[in-house]
Amino acid sequence: MKLRALSTLAMASVTLVFLASHRNSAGMTRVEDASRAPILAVLAEQQAAWNRGDVDEFMKGYWNSPEVSFAGSSGVTRGYEAVLTRYRKNYPDTKAMGHLEFSEVEVRPLGKDAAFVLGRWHLTRESGESGGVFTLVFQRFAGGWKIVHDHTSLNAKTP
Amino acid sequence: MKLRALSTLAMASVTLVFLASHRNSAGMTRVEDASRAPILAVLAEQQAAWNRGDVDEFMKGYWNSPEVSFAGSSGVTRGYEAVLTRYRKNYPDTKAMGHLEFSEVEVRPLGKDAAFVLGRWHLTRESGESGGVFTLVFQRFAGGWKIVHDHTSLNAKTP
Repeated sequence: MKLRALSTLAMASVTLVFLASHRNSAGMTRVEDASRAPILAVLAEQQAAWNRGDVDEFMKGYWNSPEVSFAGSSGVTRGYEAVLTRYRKNYPDTKAMGHLEFSEVEVRPLGKDAAFVLGRWHLTRESGESGGVFTLVFQRFAGGWKIVHDHTSLNAKTP
Repeated sequence: MKLRALSTLAMASVTLVFLASHRNSAGMTRVEDASRAPILAVLAEQQAAWNRGDVDEFMKGYWNSPEVSFAGSSGVTRGYEAVLTRYRKNYPDTKAMGHLEFSEVEVRPLGKDAAFVLGRWHLTRESGESGGVFTLVFQRFAGGWKIVHDHTSLNAKTP
């Protein structure tokens, strides 16, 4: 029993050492990650707003700037107003908006004031399901963390 | 004439003040952008390697890590070896690789050691043309700027 306890302790130590040393050469750590919680909160607010049918509130996750950008299979959309217009056009009502879920969300820090997020989106609606992956680039502003760039893909084969 | 000169001087001053103040609250400037040239060099090397049919050399633009990631319509590929395997499978020979061109490349700094790049890719080959947009997240390592994440989309309608 003593041996097993020692072995468990040794494994725990190895895990801690691994976690402590799990940093890339740019000096970022996974453990010391102050961006994760506020960024996940932005995504949770976006998901909730979408599922209430509130596109204006959903948009508040984005940087309100002419420089904010959205990339996808239809090219690049630039500027807050243009991104909002695109959402309004593609999702004119709550039926078209359906129910949105994010999953497998991974926040990868890029220094103190930036991060990118990789995740999956899944939309359930009467007209059929769709989904895919997204990359979001976040920057920290005085007003909090905002999406400065969104690249969203549709799965080649919908589930 | 004196008035016109003064007016020109005033406008130049306004422009300079605008340029100097054209920074977002994260403290980045467009003017002081040290990442742009080395990142464009990485992309130029990748394009040249691709057009020589050299996938191994093309891959050197990516971070050699199990954490490097590639996202697209077929989901997420993780790790240097897996990304290399994906390229080798999708582009088995120089005929399949064709001729690659990047255009409208925009480098957007995210602090001192990170940046993201938005651009268009265009592939010309016997079997037909294809193209789309890409988002690349770059980080600066001891060995230089490397792609840590790639999100590539195919245009909905090929040109």
